[in-house]
Amino acid sequence: MSYTFSIEDLLRGDRRTMARAISSIENGDGNADAILSSVYRHTGNAYRVGITGPPGAGKSTLTNKLARWYRKRNVRVGILAVDPTSPFTGGALLGDRIRMTDVELDDGVFIRSMASRGSLGGLSKKTREAADVLDASGVDVILLETVGVGQSELDIAGAADSTIVVLVPESGDGIQAMKAGLMEIADFFVLNKADRPGAEQAVMSIKMILGFRPHDETTWLPDVLKTVGSEGKGVQEVGEMILKHRSHLEQNGGLRVRRRQRMKSRIEEIVQDQMKVEFWNAGRLQKLSDDLDSVIALQKTPYQVAKELINTL
Amino acid sequence: MSYTFSIEDLLRGDRRTMARAISSIENGDGNADAILSSVYRHTGNAYRVGITGPPGAGKSTLTNKLARWYRKRNVRVGILAVDPTSPFTGGALLGDRIRMTDVELDDGVFIRSMASRGSLGGLSKKTREAADVLDASGVDVILLETVGVGQSELDIAGAADSTIVVLVPESGDGIQAMKAGLMEIADFFVLNKADRPGAEQAVMSIKMILGFRPHDETTWLPDVLKTVGSEGKGVQEVGEMILKHRSHLEQNGGLRVRRRQRMKSRIEEIVQDQMKVEFWNAGRLQKLSDDLDSVIALQKTPYQVAKELINTL
Repeated sequence: MSYTFSIEDLLRGDRRTMARAISSIENGDGNADAILSSVYRHTGNAYRVGITGPPGAGKSTLTNKLARWYRKRNVRVGILAVDPTSPFTGGALLGDRIRMTDVELDDGVFIRSMASRGSLGGLSKKTREAADVLDASGVDVILLETVGVGQSELDIAGAADSTIVVLVPESGDGIQAMKAGLMEIADFFVLNKADRPGAEQAVMSIKMILGFRPHDETTWLPDVLKTVGSEGKGVQEVGEMILKHRSHLEQNGGLRVRRRQRMKSRIEEIVQDQMKVEFWNAGRLQKLSDDLDSVIALQKTPYQVAKELINTL
Repeated sequence: MSYTFSIEDLLRGDRRTMARAISSIENGDGNADAILSSVYRHTGNAYRVGITGPPGAGKSTLTNKLARWYRKRNVRVGILAVDPTSPFTGGALLGDRIRMTDVELDDGVFIRSMASRGSLGGLSKKTREAADVLDASGVDVILLETVGVGQSELDIAGAADSTIVVLVPESGDGIQAMKAGLMEIADFFVLNKADRPGAEQAVMSIKMILGFRPHDETTWLPDVLKTVGSEGKGVQEVGEMILKHRSHLEQNGGLRVRRRQRMKSRIEEIVQDQMKVEFWNAGRLQKLSDDLDSVIALQKTPYQVAKELINTL
């Protein structure tokens, strides 16, 4: 499918152009490079909010309610929902369908699921690029919602200006969340479904673990907010906490530091991806395939084969 | 800390040598390369079982009970628990302490936590290498327990001969598990804490989703087993299902295919890690740092900088 990408259409926020541009990036089709190059210089205006947490914590509902809160303030919102695909049922498709019944769409909200198609490595890169498209199209806030608690998803959420970790009373005693690496990336926590039993203990437990964190007066201390996403309870406080964190980051220069660090990782990632593509040409893939039998037969070690491959550079 | 690694000590299963060898690999110290090279040709005997699932599903308890079941059959067991570290509280340490009170140790069980230290990318490689050490030391079964449900943890679990996905009734309606990418890697499922309300519905829901999977008579169909890990209920059935899956794989050649595929990914990973280390020398890191300001100022795109860096090759 070929089409002509128009940066002007994107800049005026044409939804069809936004959708197509993100599809090009997701599929890595012929338009992707041109889109990315022309989009980048129009970025930097949107504030990026990562929303993550374990499956079933109610992130989608909370994200939708938060989008609605923004809309009341006339803020344009983009939502990127990272949704690992099941190859046999089409996870992202299903995810989209679930969302559609669940959210009130208006022209000021653009929602898109990013599917992994089995290669989460590239997903973090593609999600950032899709965020650039939304940024250039004029949205004010981008909500990066990641389903799952793995490192790749953490990378995506952590690539935001503010990161919210959503937990529920059932998430366990905070040690589970800590194990999942969620504690390190949270700018603040939301305990969702806070009308369920155990909510107070869960909040205490998260706060106790946060207490271990080294800090002084100038440090931002992550707080724990309680919400009932399905009823919209506490959503306003979440929105206000994002604003508070943003103004904290802007005042102490933290936003600049974060964006610089984020761009550094991003360039490293582009370099690594590109090297990988260039390295694995037909000849090297053939050598790898030929040598596999010797490795399986314990005649060569995987390290020898790797070294021989690198030496062909 | 310097010591002399003895492959003979490792081959006779000396626990101190096993522990030190894994530490060398984990820290990437001066002994690591020599250990890996000498260990590899003594691998291939241990059967590797991946155990994964969302945080709080009771994987550790189940793994410990399963180890005990193996011990009764006089099978030597190695456990590698992949445990993302919290930089401010030391997650892996804490994890170890929790385990120690929880498991009955005997000389036939070797337990080790693998900590991420913030770089999950390398963790999958290091976990496979630690498994090689255990394999060479003469353990019969290696249980690779991964905390979390992210892609890196899935990679580790998926690097096993048989992969078990542990869920609980609270894990939600199966759609959550599917979203987390767990459905694709499971050779069978364990619904743990099956004495809790909702267990039957959870089993039905997983089976329903599994029903979508394309299959014919020769295909292995993942089953769902119920356990109550804390009481040891159903653990024997889990052990027997592992044996059943193993013999299925051995009969149809699937084990050979899996191990070949696994070795292919592993060599690719070694190549990529090595290229990364060699690429990012002081000069290139300096150029990246110098160019960051232009990128932040939107004067250059990250793609241009990446291309310029690659062109220095």
